[in-house]
Amino acid sequence: MTKLDDFPHLNLGKRTRLHRMMYEFGPGNGTLLILPIDQGLEHGPVDFFTEHDCLNPEYQFRLAVEGGYSAIALHLGLAEKYGPKFAGKIPIVLKINGKTRIPPASEPVSPMTGSVEDAVRIGADAVGYTLYVGSPNQHLDFMQFRKVKEDAEHYGMPIIVWAYPRGSSVDGKGGRDSLYVIDYAARVSNELGADVVKLNVPVTSAKSRSMQPPPYDTLNLSTEEMVAKVVRSAGKTLVIFSGGGMVTDEEVIERARICMEQGAAGLIFGRNLWQRDWDDALKMTKTLKDILLKK
Amino acid sequence: MTKLDDFPHLNLGKRTRLHRMMYEFGPGNGTLLILPIDQGLEHGPVDFFTEHDCLNPEYQFRLAVEGGYSAIALHLGLAEKYGPKFAGKIPIVLKINGKTRIPPASEPVSPMTGSVEDAVRIGADAVGYTLYVGSPNQHLDFMQFRKVKEDAEHYGMPIIVWAYPRGSSVDGKGGRDSLYVIDYAARVSNELGADVVKLNVPVTSAKSRSMQPPPYDTLNLSTEEMVAKVVRSAGKTLVIFSGGGMVTDEEVIERARICMEQGAAGLIFGRNLWQRDWDDALKMTKTLKDILLKK
Amino acid sequence: MTKLDDFPHLNLGKRTRLHRMMYEFGPGNGTLLILPIDQGLEHGPVDFFTEHDCLNPEYQFRLAVEGGYSAIALHLGLAEKYGPKFAGKIPIVLKINGKTRIPPASEPVSPMTGSVEDAVRIGADAVGYTLYVGSPNQHLDFMQFRKVKEDAEHYGMPIIVWAYPRGSSVDGKGGRDSLYVIDYAARVSNELGADVVKLNVPVTSAKSRSMQPPPYDTLNLSTEEMVAKVVRSAGKTLVIFSGGGMVTDEEVIERARICMEQGAAGLIFGRNLWQRDWDDALKMTKTLKDILLKK
Amino acid sequence: MTKLDDFPHLNLGKRTRLHRMMYEFGPGNGTLLILPIDQGLEHGPVDFFTEHDCLNPEYQFRLAVEGGYSAIALHLGLAEKYGPKFAGKIPIVLKINGKTRIPPASEPVSPMTGSVEDAVRIGADAVGYTLYVGSPNQHLDFMQFRKVKEDAEHYGMPIIVWAYPRGSSVDGKGGRDSLYVIDYAARVSNELGADVVKLNVPVTSAKSRSMQPPPYDTLNLSTEEMVAKVVRSAGKTLVIFSGGGMVTDEEVIERARICMEQGAAGLIFGRNLWQRDWDDALKMTKTLKDILLKK
Amino acid sequence: MTKLDDFPHLNLGKRTRLHRMMYEFGPGNGTLLILPIDQGLEHGPVDFFTEHDCLNPEYQFRLAVEGGYSAIALHLGLAEKYGPKFAGKIPIVLKINGKTRIPPASEPVSPMTGSVEDAVRIGADAVGYTLYVGSPNQHLDFMQFRKVKEDAEHYGMPIIVWAYPRGSSVDGKGGRDSLYVIDYAARVSNELGADVVKLNVPVTSAKSRSMQPPPYDTLNLSTEEMVAKVVRSAGKTLVIFSGGGMVTDEEVIERARICMEQGAAGLIFGRNLWQRDWDDALKMTKTLKDILLKK
Repeated sequence: MTKLDDFPHLNLGKRTRLHRMMYEFGPGNGTLLILPIDQGLEHGPVDFFTEHDCLNPEYQFRLAVEGGYSAIALHLGLAEKYGPKFAGKIPIVLKINGKTRIPPASEPVSPMTGSVEDAVRIGADAVGYTLYVGSPNQHLDFMQFRKVKEDAEHYGMPIIVWAYPRGSSVDGKGGRDSLYVIDYAARVSNELGADVVKLNVPVTSAKSRSMQPPPYDTLNLSTEEMVAKVVRSAGKTLVIFSGGGMVTDEEVIERARICMEQGAAGLIFGRNLWQRDWDDALKMTKTLKDILLKK
Repeated sequence: MTKLDDFPHLNLGKRTRLHRMMYEFGPGNGTLLILPIDQGLEHGPVDFFTEHDCLNPEYQFRLAVEGGYSAIALHLGLAEKYGPKFAGKIPIVLKINGKTRIPPASEPVSPMTGSVEDAVRIGADAVGYTLYVGSPNQHLDFMQFRKVKEDAEHYGMPIIVWAYPRGSSVDGKGGRDSLYVIDYAARVSNELGADVVKLNVPVTSAKSRSMQPPPYDTLNLSTEEMVAKVVRSAGKTLVIFSGGGMVTDEEVIERARICMEQGAAGLIFGRNLWQRDWDDALKMTKTLKDILLKK
Repeated sequence: MTKLDDFPHLNLGKRTRLHRMMYEFGPGNGTLLILPIDQGLEHGPVDFFTEHDCLNPEYQFRLAVEGGYSAIALHLGLAEKYGPKFAGKIPIVLKINGKTRIPPASEPVSPMTGSVEDAVRIGADAVGYTLYVGSPNQHLDFMQFRKVKEDAEHYGMPIIVWAYPRGSSVDGKGGRDSLYVIDYAARVSNELGADVVKLNVPVTSAKSRSMQPPPYDTLNLSTEEMVAKVVRSAGKTLVIFSGGGMVTDEEVIERARICMEQGAAGLIFGRNLWQRDWDDALKMTKTLKDILLKK
Repeated sequence: MTKLDDFPHLNLGKRTRLHRMMYEFGPGNGTLLILPIDQGLEHGPVDFFTEHDCLNPEYQFRLAVEGGYSAIALHLGLAEKYGPKFAGKIPIVLKINGKTRIPPASEPVSPMTGSVEDAVRIGADAVGYTLYVGSPNQHLDFMQFRKVKEDAEHYGMPIIVWAYPRGSSVDGKGGRDSLYVIDYAARVSNELGADVVKLNVPVTSAKSRSMQPPPYDTLNLSTEEMVAKVVRSAGKTLVIFSGGGMVTDEEVIERARICMEQGAAGLIFGRNLWQRDWDDALKMTKTLKDILLKK
Repeated sequence: MTKLDDFPHLNLGKRTRLHRMMYEFGPGNGTLLILPIDQGLEHGPVDFFTEHDCLNPEYQFRLAVEGGYSAIALHLGLAEKYGPKFAGKIPIVLKINGKTRIPPASEPVSPMTGSVEDAVRIGADAVGYTLYVGSPNQHLDFMQFRKVKEDAEHYGMPIIVWAYPRGSSVDGKGGRDSLYVIDYAARVSNELGADVVKLNVPVTSAKSRSMQPPPYDTLNLSTEEMVAKVVRSAGKTLVIFSGGGMVTDEEVIERARICMEQGAAGLIFGRNLWQRDWDDALKMTKTLKDILLKK
């Protein structure tokens, strides 16, 4: 398992904050289990049609605290409004850019909704930044990221990059879930200076492979092999995998197991946890923590 | 009814200014009744073709003062020119962005016409910002808003977001008055850090529902239910509802009643008030204040 | 007649400078008679093909001084090069944005050619800003104007807005000279915080009316009524009317009379004056001053 | 001949630097003979295919020094690299914007390659700025120029505007060499505050005239008359004429004679000089200096 | 061979840093042998499918140190993460802009991924900047470069320009490898103030020549002559040639020999070295160093 000691390049501020999330909170032992609640901005209220009141961010805050997560990830408005009651009880990853899904998705760029300074001001332990790798507006994205990077180095704030291949060109090269673009996104995050990168688990299909450039067009890897590959491409960037939409318990557990066995530093699962009722959510949290600690 | 005490996260400046509008002026008891006069910019003089002289902003200022409103909302030019005579007699919500309706409406963005600093300089108690949720230019809008948010936190100035779903993509997803986009807009305001959000009352129709994504396409809610839903989606953001164009007395009263019963913090009705003759306007104001105070 | 005393909101710097133009120079008694010489930039040398040497800006400077105008309006280059000889003898309105007429006119925006700081530095008594109301680039225009407004408040410099409806959308709503768009432009200037607005006299026609939105499509007003209407829409913004291209003496005088009788604060006539020979120009100037003073 | 004494408006810094170029170096007596070597950027190495080594900027530096020019005009890279050996021996006009000719020419704008501060830092006596008058990107150009103008006033640095009508709209109004657009460009330079303007000698043809607006469409002037006209339109801006591509000796001499007789302050001839062998270049330089001094 | 003594214009900081790379590290004697590892960003992980682990940047760092290179060139993320272990053992060229190859290539611009200040902060000895000469977005590129240039002069940081002709217009003028555009790119680098320029070796073909402007369309030069020509066009800018994709040993050696014999200051070969196994890579490195030192 990746340990913080393998990253001597991190400055004191980043090290202190990552240590808090990887050893003092969450499963510990150098792992990350993050609960994201940025879907309200990215997807809208469609994600909150459940029996229990997950529309109220207090639900996710309570789950993160009582479930013992490494951190909760959310935007400035939610952090400021719902965070005070839980101050000191759960680290915050301040998501500092985002967008709605209403406008066209062909040339995406995710505008700032907060800043590294905001993260410092509210006592967050990391910032989250969505990078749309391969978007026709990638140049705007890189320039926006550079300022974030500069500020993060200045303040000793860890950067978690949501590395999402998106946009019309990605669609033509195997699609957003293909190994080629996720592998590329992993490397880009390492090159640009992310501390942690959030990736999706690659999905393979004959059709997608045929659209990918060599040698990916002839690579027919298992999920385990694909996960291992993108973790290697991320290099000295800690990798956490996302959970995506709600799936069966077996699938959640299998995904977690594969990712951790293949070198991930942790998981960032949202809907697969907080769309569950309270007891079920706590139970699945416990299961995932065991997987992270390889019990 | 939403009370300011439920919002302990507000800093001292915001709290003081909101208290002035919610308790010292207007109906009181934690409610907001705001008189907007930004239509001259947004619609042009077409809105002022009445028997009485509502083209002269003094009419609205006098109505806001004598009717006992929580605040008057308007742009910098009108505030500076017509405000001095009423200084101290009525709180000002300085609208700091706006546009005319002449250019195409497919990719709207509302440029700044003032600033948070201007609001401080003229002694305003809040700024108003129009956010065109879902516009293809949403990224420019978010970036512009972030600066406003940063300044507002710095100066302790409450932000009222006019959360308007607009643009070509909105038209294709149920239209600007559909539950889906208004519900989304309510959540976005909460996520981005609005203190108060101005929403339109959703309107439903079979045709609009068919264009909305699941599960909205099969939701057939009453107006009461729709209002309650968007108020919940707004979370810890105070919700005030707009009045729209002139309707009958019964409709105005019914709309106000529904909104307040379903959890709104108040109303921001313009044309339905100042397009009336003086006595009629005062009378309707009185009726609305009773509804706000649930007498 | 509009008097400066009706504008108690003006700060000391603006008041002092406006007083100089409205009482110390020009016809006096609270009126404005401004000689513009920005046509060389806006139209090019085509406007200077006369027998006398109006191509040389000294001609206009001499006319403004000897004719006793309130001010001369021009761009920075002309002000710096031709102004020193006339320093103290004629107030300067520094036009701080402008463009040539060579590029396409469908989405106009007028870029800065100077600044409020330049106006302070050269001792000008006002800045002139062209706002293309309704242009598809209106958002860029508003944002540029906001900076001008901010600086003008800071330095106490009066702002004269050349409020010109322009661009493809305007063409489709009655055209640049229609009552609808000029009335709208007058209101916009008041909303955005102009101190003085330069408007064109509206022109009416059945065809143009049919393109305008209600109730303008059924308004059939005389020139007097249209002028009175736009002056009212400008509210607490002093209105000066432009002269346009060269017309007959009778037309010039009639236009001036109507404008002043209907509430204008003054006139800004250029080509109709400096395209005349010296003696003729002085004579017409005298005629106009009599109209302004209602002798 | 235009003399610096006719320009009392110039501040001390500008006056000192212009004096150096117009009296201490070059032909003297208030004239300017400038050797430009910015073609390597604007045209590329195609201009340097000669028997002698004009590809090496030392050739042009030596020619400027030994030929006794008023200044050499070039970009920052060449100034820094080749200038030190000739420091104090030849004034430098630092060209601060430029572009290659590879991209499309329909909407040109010339980006900054240096700054007024760079000019101060390297001891230059003027900056050169290319303004593409009439380009669809004219607004970006004007805004970029305004900053240059502001800095130049601050540092007392003379501005020489390369006033080039360019872009698709210019092509439709008679073309880049037509009297209409060059006459307009001359006026624009005077309006925006250039100290010196570089113009091309207008060329006339029946076809071009037919595309120009009145009264240019019926003006059939000789080259002498056209040169005199644009010099008048430039007003208090010193005019220098360009040489263009290599022509015969007779044409070079005739062009120089006409320009100087019709009121130019000087010449900026490049390829017609440094594309010649050394002795021939010095001889032609001598011939031009005699014309400038009207010997 | 080009020597640093031929560049007296370099300031102390640039001279010190270039001296370190040209004399203290690498082959010495005024040469440059740079190992680039920016392909992970520009091309993605496709370049790392080898038997040995070249996906791990430690491989390239070790090769650069043990092979005795002048410097290693890479982006900020890799420098910060993998550099500390090798601090002081190998100079760093910090590549400060870059992009992925996923978006369309027709109007490229390479956004900043770091800054000159970052280079100073991490102790780099030069910055690398990719300039897409001839791109339709060239104006954005030049403006971005100007800031880099300004900072580099301020901090005494050498600039190595990756001068790459790219974009739709380049394709229509002979293509990215044609003599015309590479020759032009060499000159542009000299004009804009690069200290070192990285060029590709031009490739000629009848088809490409037919698309190039005169006189290039009739120039049929050998590779030696083309290399000599672009070195001359680069003037006082040190030229280093790139290696491109993997080719045979003979081709690598031949390319190196030609470049050095025709006046290059060095080589920047990446894939042709680190795609080899360790012993082979060291052996080829030794061969290249002998060529650079002309043993």
